[in-house]
Amino acid sequence: MGELMNKVAIYPGTFDPVTNGHLDIIKRSVELFDKVIIAIAKSSSKTPMFELKDRKKMMELATINIPKVECVCFDTLLADFAKENKAKLIIRGLRVVSDFEYELQMGYANASLNDELDTIYFMPTLKNAFISSSIIRSILQHNGKVSHLIPEVVYEYIQKIKG
Amino acid sequence: MGELMNKVAIYPGTFDPVTNGHLDIIKRSVELFDKVIIAIAKSSSKTPMFELKDRKKMMELATINIPKVECVCFDTLLADFAKENKAKLIIRGLRVVSDFEYELQMGYANASLNDELDTIYFMPTLKNAFISSSIIRSILQHNGKVSHLIPEVVYEYIQKIKG
Amino acid sequence: MGELMNKVAIYPGTFDPVTNGHLDIIKRSVELFDKVIIAIAKSSSKTPMFELKDRKKMMELATINIPKVECVCFDTLLADFAKENKAKLIIRGLRVVSDFEYELQMGYANASLNDELDTIYFMPTLKNAFISSSIIRSILQHNGKVSHLIPEVVYEYIQKIKG
Amino acid sequence: MGELMNKVAIYPGTFDPVTNGHLDIIKRSVELFDKVIIAIAKSSSKTPMFELKDRKKMMELATINIPKVECVCFDTLLADFAKENKAKLIIRGLRVVSDFEYELQMGYANASLNDELDTIYFMPTLKNAFISSSIIRSILQHNGKVSHLIPEVVYEYIQKIKG
Amino acid sequence: MGELMNKVAIYPGTFDPVTNGHLDIIKRSVELFDKVIIAIAKSSSKTPMFELKDRKKMMELATINIPKVECVCFDTLLADFAKENKAKLIIRGLRVVSDFEYELQMGYANASLNDELDTIYFMPTLKNAFISSSIIRSILQHNGKVSHLIPEVVYEYIQKIKG
Amino acid sequence: MGELMNKVAIYPGTFDPVTNGHLDIIKRSVELFDKVIIAIAKSSSKTPMFELKDRKKMMELATINIPKVECVCFDTLLADFAKENKAKLIIRGLRVVSDFEYELQMGYANASLNDELDTIYFMPTLKNAFISSSIIRSILQHNGKVSHLIPEVVYEYIQKIKG
Repeated sequence: MGELMNKVAIYPGTFDPVTNGHLDIIKRSVELFDKVIIAIAKSSSKTPMFELKDRKKMMELATINIPKVECVCFDTLLADFAKENKAKLIIRGLRVVSDFEYELQMGYANASLNDELDTIYFMPTLKNAFISSSIIRSILQHNGKVSHLIPEVVYEYIQKIKG
Repeated sequence: MGELMNKVAIYPGTFDPVTNGHLDIIKRSVELFDKVIIAIAKSSSKTPMFELKDRKKMMELATINIPKVECVCFDTLLADFAKENKAKLIIRGLRVVSDFEYELQMGYANASLNDELDTIYFMPTLKNAFISSSIIRSILQHNGKVSHLIPEVVYEYIQKIKG
Repeated sequence: MGELMNKVAIYPGTFDPVTNGHLDIIKRSVELFDKVIIAIAKSSSKTPMFELKDRKKMMELATINIPKVECVCFDTLLADFAKENKAKLIIRGLRVVSDFEYELQMGYANASLNDELDTIYFMPTLKNAFISSSIIRSILQHNGKVSHLIPEVVYEYIQKIKG
Repeated sequence: MGELMNKVAIYPGTFDPVTNGHLDIIKRSVELFDKVIIAIAKSSSKTPMFELKDRKKMMELATINIPKVECVCFDTLLADFAKENKAKLIIRGLRVVSDFEYELQMGYANASLNDELDTIYFMPTLKNAFISSSIIRSILQHNGKVSHLIPEVVYEYIQKIKG
Repeated sequence: MGELMNKVAIYPGTFDPVTNGHLDIIKRSVELFDKVIIAIAKSSSKTPMFELKDRKKMMELATINIPKVECVCFDTLLADFAKENKAKLIIRGLRVVSDFEYELQMGYANASLNDELDTIYFMPTLKNAFISSSIIRSILQHNGKVSHLIPEVVYEYIQKIKG
Repeated sequence: MGELMNKVAIYPGTFDPVTNGHLDIIKRSVELFDKVIIAIAKSSSKTPMFELKDRKKMMELATINIPKVECVCFDTLLADFAKENKAKLIIRGLRVVSDFEYELQMGYANASLNDELDTIYFMPTLKNAFISSSIIRSILQHNGKVSHLIPEVVYEYIQKIKG
């Protein structure tokens, strides 16, 4: 039973905005863990397109029907955030080679800061293979169609805050 | 005959500034297609070194003796720009692995927005293998020699607008 | 008119066996060129799973309804084969980073052997992104299902020669 | 409770021989799952250095003190093996970029064969980052020191079967 | 003797801030060369976290006990800086694939600007494999622990200028 | 003086056959070191095209006018070979990303076997960027032109032993 207590995983990201690719990883994660904390990073150095509160709201809307999920904002080191939440597992998506190398470095850095922390990686399903938040933002900036790339409720929310 | 109508290809880019590498791809492209539209992206989010009108002027000077070429500025989605110009083919250069992955993602994204659109890729000839606009800009910022890396008329134009 | 004479492209490969990914590139190529020579390499150093005559037969069956295609076997240097066929263009598919680097090297090597030769690259469409002949062979060796990954006539041919 | 039934994961490989890197992934996996089936592939096409029965024996010795682990040989498609074992999850290690691309392709291929199957990836801990079975084999062939790279019991077993 | 005069190598970088990884390469370099000029680039386009004078001071503190080292700031092209310092050799570290490609391009660009210039590359030792200045900056921004990733004197200096 | 004793570097490889790319790295290495031992690996597991004695002979012919070079065959671990030759430095060429990752792993493995050993890397000059022994062998197998890719004396030697 104590063991099950540990089966909390954190899925961190900027989610600017949440995409079908993120949602797919969340759905696959809740199959494996007892609780998935979706940790929305403030990431002010990246100057996100959407404000933190909107990114959190969009994630909540997107995951409203997914059990065992909790959406939380954070602006600390992931290694510290995990400790505070008594989580020992990070979930990350891997789309491309540059992701892979960045993740390898961050995984080692996190392990050097919190040696109880482990990370597992998911690759996107084929139909989501090319979707990234930066591609969504680029299409949005040119008023292109994104409704097939992001959850419907997120699309509606974006329409509303833009309008 | 109707078939030849389709042999319009678009070569999009920021061209900040145009390099010998770009020019090489343009020359190889006009061997294959009936018309090559060089589409100069406004790319304001990249804060280019040269203004859009200068980038267009430099491209026009560089391609003045190449037949079947047209220089056009654009600030929309490439998928939409292609539709408007009745072009079904995009031309892209591939220099490095990170280009490759970015292009793979963009190709899938474009296909999801305009399923009539196809993309072909050229690799640089050996002597141009290392030339990129960002390297040119970096050398220019330090007043280094770029005359062997960009077309002569472009070099003269840059001297004139800097002077 | 003489110009159109040049619009012969060669699509070389071992095609051991031909996959839906190859067929997709062939279909996209005939949109661009007046003739596409599918050049099936003997590749004896790779010890292919299928004999050269079977690989040619499977390709002929797969492309029977595609116009402007010709299937030819070859066992010489590609640079020489192109010269003999008065073709100035090679078509290649690019799936992964390791493909990319190999192709870059081979493109430079071919250009050093035949400086009239150019190469263009296609990336797979999303649904074919993971299909390769080596994956097909690996599934075949374990009697797995490949009928969704290769052309139907090729699947039937393989059943027949195995049976 | 029924849910826990699903928490069986398969860790497939050739394990020719098992290394400290493999063992590290096994230890991290049993933290997450109720049962980890270590599936030792016959892999005859790779002509392994060690026979299947020795590879299985070495794995059993290496994992003798790790709970929830079962060692099984297999010579079928992984997608089929998973179905037979009612497992829905594959565990794979990712060391280098070429691993990453191969895994991405295999993941898509497996999903096309068994759509209930998911795969998660671990990256090696820093101290194991460079260890691979092929490096071990290469050192063994030249009678070099491998005792710091493989589990002690595996080292002793290799000494015994070589002696 | 005149030959030894040439054994001056330049190790350029932004060093924002210097890390254990940089220091490791410096120590290995002085084993090979008679003098190593550590060239701290102004890099104003990168908007560094630390001012140039602080980055120089930190490097001087970190290398105070390493013989044959000289710390110099520069804001010109590396190819020109090398000429002025009569150095024919550049030292660079290679951590990841994206480093590799960037370095390959820069090496070719530098050679096109100064054909007497050669570059050699070091890879990090295993324990430093994941350390980069950008990871240090990211941890510093969140008040995390960096004392195990940078030289002690650099850590103290940062505490002092922050305090 | 004792210091100079250490400036022996080993350049290991299969050299099947030596190319202009190898020769370029040898010429650049003798600028830096007092002695360069060219260590020709037996590499029987690769089943080389040329016999070890021919590979050594070709290397001797290619380097006949280069001072400070010694050609030696070896069939042991590189880490041991270096110890026997009192060399603390390995020289390696890096052409492509897959080289890079392989070298990173081998460098760590060698360091784990002989902690006095360091490795430095050269990248090819632009004109040699695509030349590899495997491309040479592939062209030779099809009777293609290689005289522009390998040293002239090596070309003549190959003609002689083939004739």
